Amino acid sequence: MADSPNCDLKSLSPLQLFERVTEQGEKVRALKAGKAPKDEIDAAVRMLLSLKLSYKTTTGQDYQAGLPPRDLILINNGTAKEEDEDFVDPWTVQTSNAKGVDYDKLIVRFGSSKINTDLINRIERAIGQKPHRFLRRGIFFSHRDMDQILDAYENKKSFYLYTGRGPSSQAMHVGHLIPFIFTKWLQEVFDVPLVIQLTDDEKYLWKDLTTEKAYEYARENAKDIIACGFDINKTFIFSDLDYLGTSTGFYKNIVKVQKHVTFNQVKGIFGFTDSDCIGKISFPAIQAAPSFSSSFPQIFNGKENIQCLIPCAIDQDPYFRMTRDVAPRIGQPKPALLHSVFFPALQGAQTKMSASDPNSSIFLTDTPKQIKTKINKHAFSGGRDTIEEHRKYGGNCDVDVSFMYLTFFLEDDDRLEQLKQAYTSGELLTGELKKVLIETLQPLIAAHQERRKQVTDEMVKQFMTPRKLAFEF
Amino acid sequence: MADSPNCDLKSLSPLQLFERVTEQGEKVRALKAGKAPKDEIDAAVRMLLSLKLSYKTTTGQDYQAGLPPRDLILINNGTAKEEDEDFVDPWTVQTSNAKGVDYDKLIVRFGSSKINTDLINRIERAIGQKPHRFLRRGIFFSHRDMDQILDAYENKKSFYLYTGRGPSSQAMHVGHLIPFIFTKWLQEVFDVPLVIQLTDDEKYLWKDLTTEKAYEYARENAKDIIACGFDINKTFIFSDLDYLGTSTGFYKNIVKVQKHVTFNQVKGIFGFTDSDCIGKISFPAIQAAPSFSSSFPQIFNGKENIQCLIPCAIDQDPYFRMTRDVAPRIGQPKPALLHSVFFPALQGAQTKMSASDPNSSIFLTDTPKQIKTKINKHAFSGGRDTIEEHRKYGGNCDVDVSFMYLTFFLEDDDRLEQLKQAYTSGELLTGELKKVLIETLQPLIAAHQERRKQVTDEMVKQFMTPRKLAFEF
Repeated sequence: MADSPNCDLKSLSPLQLFERVTEQGEKVRALKAGKAPKDEIDAAVRMLLSLKLSYKTTTGQDYQAGLPPRDLILINNGTAKEEDEDFVDPWTVQTSNAKGVDYDKLIVRFGSSKINTDLINRIERAIGQKPHRFLRRGIFFSHRDMDQILDAYENKKSFYLYTGRGPSSQAMHVGHLIPFIFTKWLQEVFDVPLVIQLTDDEKYLWKDLTTEKAYEYARENAKDIIACGFDINKTFIFSDLDYLGTSTGFYKNIVKVQKHVTFNQVKGIFGFTDSDCIGKISFPAIQAAPSFSSSFPQIFNGKENIQCLIPCAIDQDPYFRMTRDVAPRIGQPKPALLHSVFFPALQGAQTKMSASDPNSSIFLTDTPKQIKTKINKHAFSGGRDTIEEHRKYGGNCDVDVSFMYLTFFLEDDDRLEQLKQAYTSGELLTGELKKVLIETLQPLIAAHQERRKQVTDEMVKQFMTPRKLAFEF
Repeated sequence: MADSPNCDLKSLSPLQLFERVTEQGEKVRALKAGKAPKDEIDAAVRMLLSLKLSYKTTTGQDYQAGLPPRDLILINNGTAKEEDEDFVDPWTVQTSNAKGVDYDKLIVRFGSSKINTDLINRIERAIGQKPHRFLRRGIFFSHRDMDQILDAYENKKSFYLYTGRGPSSQAMHVGHLIPFIFTKWLQEVFDVPLVIQLTDDEKYLWKDLTTEKAYEYARENAKDIIACGFDINKTFIFSDLDYLGTSTGFYKNIVKVQKHVTFNQVKGIFGFTDSDCIGKISFPAIQAAPSFSSSFPQIFNGKENIQCLIPCAIDQDPYFRMTRDVAPRIGQPKPALLHSVFFPALQGAQTKMSASDPNSSIFLTDTPKQIKTKINKHAFSGGRDTIEEHRKYGGNCDVDVSFMYLTFFLEDDDRLEQLKQAYTSGELLTGELKKVLIETLQPLIAAHQERRKQVTDEMVKQFMTPRKLAFEF
């Protein structure tokens, strides 16, 4: 039994197992087609059955050709699962629903809390202004302990913001801006320090990149982030490869987290296997450590107990569930979180945008013409097949990517509502809706490009220099 | 088959498997003794047989009660094994032989090279002086690529020395001095830079210590190391917790090593399991990285290709086998190594000295009286039971700890030879041999204590400050 294939397969992720079953199935078909000797075919079939059994044991599902496993997080958390669950982890977002991931279900699965009207109203009272459109429209939809942040704020206790980005290529797309637009707003309304982590070490570990290239991407991406308009006196941007070697506090927190998380745990949370490099296995601690103020002694004067608030897309939550689990065991406060939905690809909300597919996204470097062409050509439409049908039955805003993008970028609530009604009633055609989006995005991106041109290498250097910010601690 | 116990057991080390078999055996005996129901006993017996099968599959040995597995490294290397192998890894040294570990066999198992007369003669020619007693007497007995170091040295190409210590408690014993005494000699005769790593992060990860305490031990241990007489202009001592946050090169090399070593590999080399924390799993990269000169840009002016020579006890070799495996894949030269034997405990050469058992060792803080008492009371004697028998048959220097200690610390070759002959012939009694050792160690330790008193906190700070040394690169 010890040499049964199932034993080796224990270390495989559901997706890897799925691929093994698929490969073996193809092998069996090839052997049969090639009229291979009976015992060879029999052996291959036995292996196939054994692989399918392993797949079922691991995923709780029967193997179905062409249908990869979708419930990793759910299984790992040991909770019940349903047939139509979405798959969400830091590397993959998958759903079969054209409306996108079911975020209410995700809240239940991840054990976070919904950002409801009460919380939005409380934020409005605390800051004395209208909440950001991302809050009003449920784009930031889930949180952990945001009420504690507000308690602290109302009691004049400070906190700080932490967000980040994995700099995988020079070009960022509009979806990458979401956390930064929102974080900038949070920083302005709460007037708190902000740290932005560029995980160039992560990209080095996961991709075929040199450390130099990863660091170069980090600095290039920093320019786009700075172009969002962050206040240099209140914001510290850092590359891991760089800051780890210049901070007296960062590594100490990393090693503390690393002492309190086992391989079994990261295997469960992130799906790592025995064949993964030890860099990947220990990386989650590096994304966790900026959640603790003692990682930034230059900003917080060495203080350990400053509460942290992390705005991020929901797929980053596994890192911070782990962080929140470890925090009390190393004498640190748990970070609070605000989770956003995913920014849909032009082709539809089933997947997250990808920086590696130029047609899946609108890049911050795109020209007005490219923006227009991409939207007209690739933006998935919720409209009808013919003008006549559209006028008669109306369009579907729930799956229309142009409309989704407008919910992200059109500030005017009334205008958005008008567009929705006109599109749904059939009064507004797809081409007309796309035109509104083009006219919204073109000046927005042109303005970004203009601001980015102003960002000098010297400014990047200043933002990335560890230093005191304009706050006393 | 997927739920067979063997599958879960795959992640256990041979020693953990051994413990599981032992526990299960006790359970079966308890059930039988307690006249438990037959089916309960049968199930326990089936589990026991299954565990024994796993043990055999993993270790290649039948389970024997009371005989833990001893060949981890051998099995991991996939080479043949013998019944009477010693067990050596960075945490455990075990042998059943009173003469100590069989070092010739260890050379074969580890795949290193013996330091033979030719090599010692070549060193003598290169440096133009008599080789250190540790070389003359086979205390440094094994090497990797020392000939390449000599090639480079003869061609006026520089190299550097790297050694280290895990600072587990404030008190160091005389055995801890061995690598430092030898490294100091190497530094003097070759006139090269030296870096000394204090792995306070390792101790934090493995022991029940705070980071602050581990760092305090590191600084205390640095005082004893400095007291060995290292040249402050040629030596850099660093704590990981400290230096990782102040070096622009160290972390980059760590993450490069971490990208090129999988969990499977560290499991094989160090016996880690899925229950180990991710800090332990990724630590080997931190001991590897100082083997590359780019970890010390302040010393080597950013140069990447300076060859490294590591003097260390043979139990540290697994770290550097891993390092040598990774080096070419990250474009770095493989470090060369000089391996020492283990310093025997007072009670005999079967085990390594332990800083946690005060009577197993002579500490650098011991008074002349304590030294005398410990040697007289605890030093294992190779003498006979009665004076008459001793005079008649003579003593056995191969197992006599006092004689072994003298081979480490008595500089005079002729005197040592005389003592050996006199003891072996029965002319010299155990008490007389012990007296020679006491008179050798007392002034040596007193002088060390005197030098240590001169080491100020300011000196420690200087030694531990990243800076240029007295060499041009």
